[in-house]
Amino acid sequence: MNREYDTVSLDDERGVLVAIDQTKLPNALEFLALSTPPDIRDAIRSLQIRGAPAIGVAAAFGYYLAARNAAVSGDALWEALREAKQTLASSRPTAVNLFWALERMERSAFSCPDRQNLIQRLKAEAVSIRDEDVASCRAIGGYGLTLLKDGDGILTHCNAGRLAAVRYGTALAPVYVGAERGARFKVYATETRPLMQGARLTAYELSAAGIDVTLICDNMASRVMRNGWVRAVITGCDRVAANGDVCNKIGTSALAVLAAHYSIPFYVCAPLSTVDLRTASGDEIPIEERDGGEVSEMWFQKPSAPAGVKIYNPSFDVTPHSLVSAIVTERGVLRAPYAESLRGAKHS
Amino acid sequence: MNREYDTVSLDDERGVLVAIDQTKLPNALEFLALSTPPDIRDAIRSLQIRGAPAIGVAAAFGYYLAARNAAVSGDALWEALREAKQTLASSRPTAVNLFWALERMERSAFSCPDRQNLIQRLKAEAVSIRDEDVASCRAIGGYGLTLLKDGDGILTHCNAGRLAAVRYGTALAPVYVGAERGARFKVYATETRPLMQGARLTAYELSAAGIDVTLICDNMASRVMRNGWVRAVITGCDRVAANGDVCNKIGTSALAVLAAHYSIPFYVCAPLSTVDLRTASGDEIPIEERDGGEVSEMWFQKPSAPAGVKIYNPSFDVTPHSLVSAIVTERGVLRAPYAESLRGAKHS
Repeated sequence: MNREYDTVSLDDERGVLVAIDQTKLPNALEFLALSTPPDIRDAIRSLQIRGAPAIGVAAAFGYYLAARNAAVSGDALWEALREAKQTLASSRPTAVNLFWALERMERSAFSCPDRQNLIQRLKAEAVSIRDEDVASCRAIGGYGLTLLKDGDGILTHCNAGRLAAVRYGTALAPVYVGAERGARFKVYATETRPLMQGARLTAYELSAAGIDVTLICDNMASRVMRNGWVRAVITGCDRVAANGDVCNKIGTSALAVLAAHYSIPFYVCAPLSTVDLRTASGDEIPIEERDGGEVSEMWFQKPSAPAGVKIYNPSFDVTPHSLVSAIVTERGVLRAPYAESLRGAKHS
Repeated sequence: MNREYDTVSLDDERGVLVAIDQTKLPNALEFLALSTPPDIRDAIRSLQIRGAPAIGVAAAFGYYLAARNAAVSGDALWEALREAKQTLASSRPTAVNLFWALERMERSAFSCPDRQNLIQRLKAEAVSIRDEDVASCRAIGGYGLTLLKDGDGILTHCNAGRLAAVRYGTALAPVYVGAERGARFKVYATETRPLMQGARLTAYELSAAGIDVTLICDNMASRVMRNGWVRAVITGCDRVAANGDVCNKIGTSALAVLAAHYSIPFYVCAPLSTVDLRTASGDEIPIEERDGGEVSEMWFQKPSAPAGVKIYNPSFDVTPHSLVSAIVTERGVLRAPYAESLRGAKHS
């Protein structure tokens, strides 16, 4: 992957959101050009665009484009923006960055004193959200690096790398920032069934960046840890509740339990846009369940399971805060009690 | 799957071992007819025949067929048998039933007072091994059932069902014997990457038997347990060390750690042929590592990972005895301290 491509970006001249089609990786690097909220929603639903921070940025650009491309003004424009927000918000339920970005865009629109400048104002806000994502991820990388030693083995899950954000990523930011500073880590990437983001995306982007990466199946993490190869487990997250419970890709909670069992620290990297103080605990986070065909048919030459078998396919799980060693944000490394440290960081 | 088919059986008329080709399931039910040790070894290596008990029985029949089909006698016959044992033993390193069955066949040959009856003697021994497997699995089912209540949710890993043995299976024997007695269980089958034995085989054989089964990805076990759906985790095993450490399909140790975390009992079903008192602990068990292509290419329409990425693909892991709630054998339910209970059961 060429570093010069952002995962999601704005082509303002053409009036489109440009995004790497993540369903085509690692076999092809193709770009989507999307101009309408329904198209962006569909791309998020189908996981062509995925990763909590990237989804947030895509939604922000989508909201701006809805305003920019609207052939209407006045009340009709406001109606179009309301509809754009609703459409984009309906793409996926779990990651909070989506809602956070849309609300921020809407606030920006509502607070625009000069309606003639609304379009420019929304563009600036969306660009800010994008720029802040890049800066936050870079800061997370720096703070995360303080938790690691050169040469450490790191186990990560799913993809919380640059493909999940605009650049750098969250969980992989310490690896990339470390590499810029000459540190070399050995990353174990779980393939992350059913959608294979670890195999398709993490192994891909780390390989492309020249980082030492070893792919394993999800169920091999216990053995890799027992082998003594892992000094830290680092994941991203889709939503952090006010008490520090972490909602992330299905399988994350198992890795946290294993890390505790093997006395390995379990770190979560989260831009503060992912922290949702309005959600008291992980129990309140809606967990998306997706079609069983993702488990038994997608990707495969032939179905992996007998026709008609019942399949349970939750996309996320909740890791209780008691299993989280630290949450790394752009404002520093937060420790328990998270109710306090999260609130402090969010309001600082 | 038709219940009348044994997973492995002898067609003495044709001089062949007949086995379900497990790599074709669940999309086709095809049978292999194998007559020579190299063919049987290759079928075991390629997992057309798999499951510790089934491998043991296949090796026994293979040894017999080597004698039966040998066109030689006298010293040349003994040489052929030595070679047959060596060939069959080289198929896979981890499961102990293979070596146990071959040694038993060899002892039977060596102790044959009447060399003219050697062939018949070996056939009788192989048939005994087969019959004992069926009886052991049935007994394991009965004892395992004492640990369960009607309606329980059971999580199992890989395939330790009838397809892993001759009939009944080990981990699934309590489910089948329970069904015969009117008990209804709800089974959660982990798909078991990379070779999908849970999806392809467990989901298949349970569905065919009318058992309530739900397929999940390996990394969903934590969430299913946290949902409160699992009253027991039950797995088979490939080798039990003298101290009760259990070597089984990769991922088993993670399920044991999770079960302990969620206060769910973790049971291992093992015919005593799987117990290896000569192996002091799990650390001494050789863990087979297989080709990385099983992870990234096999089954898939397109590679799931970038070309050339490093892949670690161990087929088994070791669950320490401290995480094992009980080991269910054909001689009863064994509890810790396993060093004593295993020795007692093995020598009784």
